Amino acid sequence: MSGGAHPWLAGLLGDAEIAALTGPEAELAAMLAFETALAGAEAAAGVIPADAGAAIAAALAGFRPDMGALAAATARDGVVVPELVRQLRAAVGEPHAAHLHFGATSQDVIDTSLVLRLKAALPLLAARLDAVIAALDGLEARFGDRRLMGRTRMQAAIPITAGARIASWRGPLARQRVRLEALLPEVLVIQFGGAAGTLDTLGDKAAAVRAALAAALGLGDAPQWQSQRDRIAALAGWLATTTGALGKLGQDVALMAQGGGEIVLAGGGRSSAMPRKANPVGAEVLVALARFNAVQSGGMQQAMVHEQERSGAGWTLEWLLLPPMLIATGAALRTAGAVVASIEAIGD
Amino acid sequence: MSGGAHPWLAGLLGDAEIAALTGPEAELAAMLAFETALAGAEAAAGVIPADAGAAIAAALAGFRPDMGALAAATARDGVVVPELVRQLRAAVGEPHAAHLHFGATSQDVIDTSLVLRLKAALPLLAARLDAVIAALDGLEARFGDRRLMGRTRMQAAIPITAGARIASWRGPLARQRVRLEALLPEVLVIQFGGAAGTLDTLGDKAAAVRAALAAALGLGDAPQWQSQRDRIAALAGWLATTTGALGKLGQDVALMAQGGGEIVLAGGGRSSAMPRKANPVGAEVLVALARFNAVQSGGMQQAMVHEQERSGAGWTLEWLLLPPMLIATGAALRTAGAVVASIEAIGD
Amino acid sequence: MSGGAHPWLAGLLGDAEIAALTGPEAELAAMLAFETALAGAEAAAGVIPADAGAAIAAALAGFRPDMGALAAATARDGVVVPELVRQLRAAVGEPHAAHLHFGATSQDVIDTSLVLRLKAALPLLAARLDAVIAALDGLEARFGDRRLMGRTRMQAAIPITAGARIASWRGPLARQRVRLEALLPEVLVIQFGGAAGTLDTLGDKAAAVRAALAAALGLGDAPQWQSQRDRIAALAGWLATTTGALGKLGQDVALMAQGGGEIVLAGGGRSSAMPRKANPVGAEVLVALARFNAVQSGGMQQAMVHEQERSGAGWTLEWLLLPPMLIATGAALRTAGAVVASIEAIGD
Amino acid sequence: MSGGAHPWLAGLLGDAEIAALTGPEAELAAMLAFETALAGAEAAAGVIPADAGAAIAAALAGFRPDMGALAAATARDGVVVPELVRQLRAAVGEPHAAHLHFGATSQDVIDTSLVLRLKAALPLLAARLDAVIAALDGLEARFGDRRLMGRTRMQAAIPITAGARIASWRGPLARQRVRLEALLPEVLVIQFGGAAGTLDTLGDKAAAVRAALAAALGLGDAPQWQSQRDRIAALAGWLATTTGALGKLGQDVALMAQGGGEIVLAGGGRSSAMPRKANPVGAEVLVALARFNAVQSGGMQQAMVHEQERSGAGWTLEWLLLPPMLIATGAALRTAGAVVASIEAIGD
Repeated sequence: MSGGAHPWLAGLLGDAEIAALTGPEAELAAMLAFETALAGAEAAAGVIPADAGAAIAAALAGFRPDMGALAAATARDGVVVPELVRQLRAAVGEPHAAHLHFGATSQDVIDTSLVLRLKAALPLLAARLDAVIAALDGLEARFGDRRLMGRTRMQAAIPITAGARIASWRGPLARQRVRLEALLPEVLVIQFGGAAGTLDTLGDKAAAVRAALAAALGLGDAPQWQSQRDRIAALAGWLATTTGALGKLGQDVALMAQGGGEIVLAGGGRSSAMPRKANPVGAEVLVALARFNAVQSGGMQQAMVHEQERSGAGWTLEWLLLPPMLIATGAALRTAGAVVASIEAIGD
Repeated sequence: MSGGAHPWLAGLLGDAEIAALTGPEAELAAMLAFETALAGAEAAAGVIPADAGAAIAAALAGFRPDMGALAAATARDGVVVPELVRQLRAAVGEPHAAHLHFGATSQDVIDTSLVLRLKAALPLLAARLDAVIAALDGLEARFGDRRLMGRTRMQAAIPITAGARIASWRGPLARQRVRLEALLPEVLVIQFGGAAGTLDTLGDKAAAVRAALAAALGLGDAPQWQSQRDRIAALAGWLATTTGALGKLGQDVALMAQGGGEIVLAGGGRSSAMPRKANPVGAEVLVALARFNAVQSGGMQQAMVHEQERSGAGWTLEWLLLPPMLIATGAALRTAGAVVASIEAIGD
Repeated sequence: MSGGAHPWLAGLLGDAEIAALTGPEAELAAMLAFETALAGAEAAAGVIPADAGAAIAAALAGFRPDMGALAAATARDGVVVPELVRQLRAAVGEPHAAHLHFGATSQDVIDTSLVLRLKAALPLLAARLDAVIAALDGLEARFGDRRLMGRTRMQAAIPITAGARIASWRGPLARQRVRLEALLPEVLVIQFGGAAGTLDTLGDKAAAVRAALAAALGLGDAPQWQSQRDRIAALAGWLATTTGALGKLGQDVALMAQGGGEIVLAGGGRSSAMPRKANPVGAEVLVALARFNAVQSGGMQQAMVHEQERSGAGWTLEWLLLPPMLIATGAALRTAGAVVASIEAIGD
Repeated sequence: MSGGAHPWLAGLLGDAEIAALTGPEAELAAMLAFETALAGAEAAAGVIPADAGAAIAAALAGFRPDMGALAAATARDGVVVPELVRQLRAAVGEPHAAHLHFGATSQDVIDTSLVLRLKAALPLLAARLDAVIAALDGLEARFGDRRLMGRTRMQAAIPITAGARIASWRGPLARQRVRLEALLPEVLVIQFGGAAGTLDTLGDKAAAVRAALAAALGLGDAPQWQSQRDRIAALAGWLATTTGALGKLGQDVALMAQGGGEIVLAGGGRSSAMPRKANPVGAEVLVALARFNAVQSGGMQQAMVHEQERSGAGWTLEWLLLPPMLIATGAALRTAGAVVASIEAIGD
């Protein structure tokens, strides 16, 4: 299930907004932005002719890819960039075709495109996280003083307040919000290294071009990290811990709904067999998405064993795992907002 | 990345054939097949009026869903069936609307739909597996006697034959083929239990209806297994072990290609930075897909903790994990076929 | 937590019996059994002198290793066998020292030792599985007809019988029992391949020696599978699915205990803060062990990417993952037996 | 394999120092430290009699547990604390027995004990990480300018410097070192909440007692986090990313060793079949430990779904997963130090 794709599950488990910010169209736009900014930076630095930057920008502004050719070439090349560059160079034409993608390699395009899409998507996740936290603050204000049976090891323990339970949901989310702020400058950095990471074709202008490219794209400047996947692994960990925290909220809500009397939920899912039953669907979805992301996060850690200057295997594994994690996190935050909003009362 | 969805990655990592056999359109068709066969079986058994079966079959033959309504309802209900049944009953009209889906529940429809799609897709995987095994037999016949350096712990050990290496690729695949035959009758069974698994609304005709329903759908008959996910977990294990075996093949080919001289591959992926470089893309993809499915298989085992008569959380987790595993297995088998076919020589 | 090691957790999460059958002492005994049987088979086949077999058997019967030297050498060699063989040859002395381990390699010793220990441990798991199934049969006989609220998606659905719930616990276990019978002949086979899997030093006597060695050890005969880990992955899958099925039982019992009234459990764990509280500890442990094994099983599938003739990385990963899985499965079966035995009533 | 336990594998895959700082003896000492400090803080605050603090400290200073009773009780209670408290109270005797553990619960003792052991063990990991980074700096100084073939997608790309490869190993480790500093104040905080997290028995002195307890133990003060496992999940992520970065180093070294000529390693593991072969054992171990921790980290994210005020299942899952991760990280850092130290040359 990739967010947006399934005609009826996407609304439950996908996330149209995150999919739009991170999906193929956004990826293509980000790749073009990379090539345009690179040409601009190289033209300014005198690495390519001064007029090449503008010519390339103009050609790419109206570019529409031959999708069939991209797909066919990707199946052979393992990455879309060689064919995309071929098409882009054809669109640029002479004399500037060879000035496009100069000194760059596939990974520069793909990894920076990922970062640019994260730059667009992470603030949306942050905003949703803020909204869930605020909604929990609202719950606390309304019901925080009510009595709720505290439960440990699935058994009634002693009474607590609804506020104590709500605080256990909000605490991890608030900390995740802070952690995200620390993570952003780590993750939102340019990847630019050339064929084997050394930017050798740019000579002594390499550092200046990279800094200008980063600035043009609104990213931090950093040495190439093409085989150093710790930032991406850290991001995956953040995603999984966020959905994990929401999964605890969902599990609690589902258990409270089962018990009866501890929580009042508006709405609820219908059953095909029993029309009067109201299922805590959103709460269950939070648990499912938490376990889903937990699974994927382990795979992202596997992808850290990224051999040599570029691992086709490790890199491709990230492509399979990370986009669904972003979608799942978006879906979980949206669902958590809805679940919290549906709580009409907690405790007594 | 769900097979078929991504405009340029689908050809590399997706599988259009498996996606067609298992995706949403196939799912819808299988759900309609279930409801049609159920009405037929219940009409024959006298559970619903004799003419209800034919009326329902006729109405469903031309049914086209309101996809927007399905999506909206699924986001609320957590499963598509309640709204689908509502639409189907509207299509059937009176007096037979209530005879559709009689005695059934959402899980009967969804799980049996899964099984019907597996019944279509697993033979395709089997055929591809046969083809890979046959291609390895061909390699063995051509190059089996050639000399190859045996390597243990990443170090040259003693010379072996190319045939010995090829046998280490074929062995697990041949056993997986046998295991699949044992797995099919386990997995390809009807799920039919009603609201809580007891088929209580069918009274003493429950067993007969279930048997007739299974027969009509070409499935084995079995007591409901709605909260017993061992068969599905066994299938997931088979998928992961199959891609794992192909991952070993891929890793070996990539290492042989690196060493130079041990293997000759036709084609190979292009690089955007170095036009003359030929990358063992298919081999790397096999490793990535192996690690992907390994990750997901652990999640499918998590989904076995399926509480009570139906776990929204556990069941939804399966929906997120299993379809991509099927796609990945299809992609790996197709890729393995291409990789083996591209081997122009092994050993010397 | 490796079963048996932790002074107070071992009784909760470990398994002294499984640890004894699979742990280091059993491993050493199995390795000696391998070397003894190999010498016997090679002597009988004329590969080594006729009296070497008896001499080696006699020397190994009283062998006690220098553990410090084994540990030091393992840290350097990555496997215990080179130093063990050195010590064993010293014990055998001339003229037969070189006839010990003739034609064999480390992996033959380690993998066959694993299989021999599985041959001892799997029947114990089978017996415990039988006992749990029988105990569930007993529950069914006593309480099967009682009424229990069926619950779907964490909500009360319609009444079922206690027998229906019990059947959902027994079904997967009964099928796992059958699957184990199919798995045993697959897994309990000799590993014997020599330096790179080709048994080249044994010439035309290789097949006969391997068959005799297998027979002497009570194992099936099979071509070497040193880089073909599908059998081991299948075993890991079986272990995880077994504990997963028990985790479902545990989750259900914990939920029933929370609800109150649905189940009566004898005993229960104490709380340090609330003396009167009785926690469903065994049920929770079943869930924890299920999730633990689910996690590890994904890792065992990762280990299938076993490069070339022997992967130090993949093989070592198995050593880290599989023994704890065996322990966890033993602990889960023992705990399930205790949980089921503690059920004084289900339903009303 | 729990670090220290296996007689010959512990030196390869375990870590005696980390095991000593985090294992059962350290755990018991930390639990006694908690109870002693708690009594001291409560006596100072007037929650328990003024002389109870000193009496309890004196009694606990010489306490030796009845291990058999601890083990038997843990198997029943699911946690060691109830029986430990019983034994401690017996040791304290009247009139102060009831003043020990006053207002606390099992989770306070266990979780704070974990944190205290992390406080001891994480600096050791940090020191080893520093040493690996420094050793890489040394490699860079000696060999950084040498030529090395850059390899992308397992194929020779263009020449780089050895320094570029070394930088790709050091970069993630240096960032992990910085991340650890940020993580420490998050993780090293007191857990103190009482029966259900509300410290209700301490009344208006709860905050003061908790602050004093934290200060006495050298930990940060923080509201109880018993069901909020994000800090622990973050720690697990850090462990996995650290071993993942070392796994990349190991994979590279193993591949360089295979190629021949790119790296010169001192030592190397012996083979039982081929005395002259030198295996890159340490490098392979790094890959195995990376994949091991990657697997476990996914499980730690699963444990975030920690229901209600205390999840027996989720908490126990952490006990199974986290200690081996700490051991594996220690082993990987030690091994990486040895691998880097064994590099006699890189590049040419």
